[in-house]
Amino acid sequence: MSSPPAVHAMLFDVFGTVVDWRSSIIADLSAYGKARGLSTDWTRFTDEWRGLYQPSMEAVRSGKRAWTILDVLHRESLDTLLKQHGLEHATEADRVHMTKAWHRLHPWPDAVGGLTRLKTRYIIGTLSNGNVGLLTRMAKFGGLPWDVILGAETARAYKPLPEAYLRAAEILNIAPSELMLVAAHNGDLAAAEAVGLKTAFVPRPSEYGPEQKIDRTAEKAWTVVASDFEDLASRMGCK
Amino acid sequence: MSSPPAVHAMLFDVFGTVVDWRSSIIADLSAYGKARGLSTDWTRFTDEWRGLYQPSMEAVRSGKRAWTILDVLHRESLDTLLKQHGLEHATEADRVHMTKAWHRLHPWPDAVGGLTRLKTRYIIGTLSNGNVGLLTRMAKFGGLPWDVILGAETARAYKPLPEAYLRAAEILNIAPSELMLVAAHNGDLAAAEAVGLKTAFVPRPSEYGPEQKIDRTAEKAWTVVASDFEDLASRMGCK
Repeated sequence: MSSPPAVHAMLFDVFGTVVDWRSSIIADLSAYGKARGLSTDWTRFTDEWRGLYQPSMEAVRSGKRAWTILDVLHRESLDTLLKQHGLEHATEADRVHMTKAWHRLHPWPDAVGGLTRLKTRYIIGTLSNGNVGLLTRMAKFGGLPWDVILGAETARAYKPLPEAYLRAAEILNIAPSELMLVAAHNGDLAAAEAVGLKTAFVPRPSEYGPEQKIDRTAEKAWTVVASDFEDLASRMGCK
Repeated sequence: MSSPPAVHAMLFDVFGTVVDWRSSIIADLSAYGKARGLSTDWTRFTDEWRGLYQPSMEAVRSGKRAWTILDVLHRESLDTLLKQHGLEHATEADRVHMTKAWHRLHPWPDAVGGLTRLKTRYIIGTLSNGNVGLLTRMAKFGGLPWDVILGAETARAYKPLPEAYLRAAEILNIAPSELMLVAAHNGDLAAAEAVGLKTAFVPRPSEYGPEQKIDRTAEKAWTVVASDFEDLASRMGCK
């Protein structure tokens, strides 16, 4: 194996790359529904909730609305969906609990082991559109051993805007070329590469469920392509 | 013992409260000097370096100069002192190494044990005038198990300005009253209390050396007064 690329810090996309948001949210909402005897299709509900993710951020990215954190965008999308699914009766406490399901996401099976190895050699952290509060609680829930949590507030810009990547390098006091983004999404990596970051792709072919069509493989010769986080740790020279 | 105060997160002043900066810097500079056969008084040099800390931040606080991170302020103060001590011959590499001594500070003996216990029940993190990059490297050096690193860039305001405390609560998505500041400095705690935070005092009577006059004891009935971080963990209800 060739020697690993010279980077000082590795930052990770989180939703889909580190944690399995879809299975986690389906399970969380299903438990809520079962306790209340609801017959809602929670798999569809989950996919629709995530479907509103990019449009809600796009309103902020484009400048149409003022800076808004993801916890708030998640809650607004939830309120919309509850109405569409005939669940307007959900209480405020229920809505808070459901929104916080995004703080209770389970890591993919290889994530904690791989991160623990990478942490011995690199600064490891998040480079996510999640807000810092959300990411901090998710890390405690899943035992993610981050050195540093950089959220959307770090740059007040949502990926894939260039500032999101450049500000992360700046706040760690390193050059963009000393920073590697790890993601399961080719588009995220392309935006990071365009502003000078190193890149690593790890496939998560069931992130969007069994029918997933996109991001099943690396679409470019990224700096590193690994099969999972354990393989990534090995390729990055970690024991 | 009465029940612990209801807080969601505990943020810590770092220099002096968590790490013994003075002994660490003296040892670091002494090793540098010994390797080069220099007869500099490194204890005096260290105290003078820290003596320039507040004045350098005050220029930023007062708006006299643009936002500048602590790594840069440390370097500027170092350059001034090297000249005063007849050490202008120090190379650029030496100056970088010496400035990074502030990334290599040793925790007080009770710090890691107490933090590890507190982490089981609370979000724990930094609320420091250090920059995020400095604090991240210091945490890796000393094994400090932070959940989240909030540095001066979080608010772009140096303590004791009110924004430094309020922005930390905001970024964790909690009310100021749900946040506790832990510090060995009565002035820091007074500023935090004034904007609604809970407070905990832990004495570090040798932070400034054997002759320390200030901050030897709690000067007010702070929310919690503890003898060290292990005692703090017990008072905060942690096993």
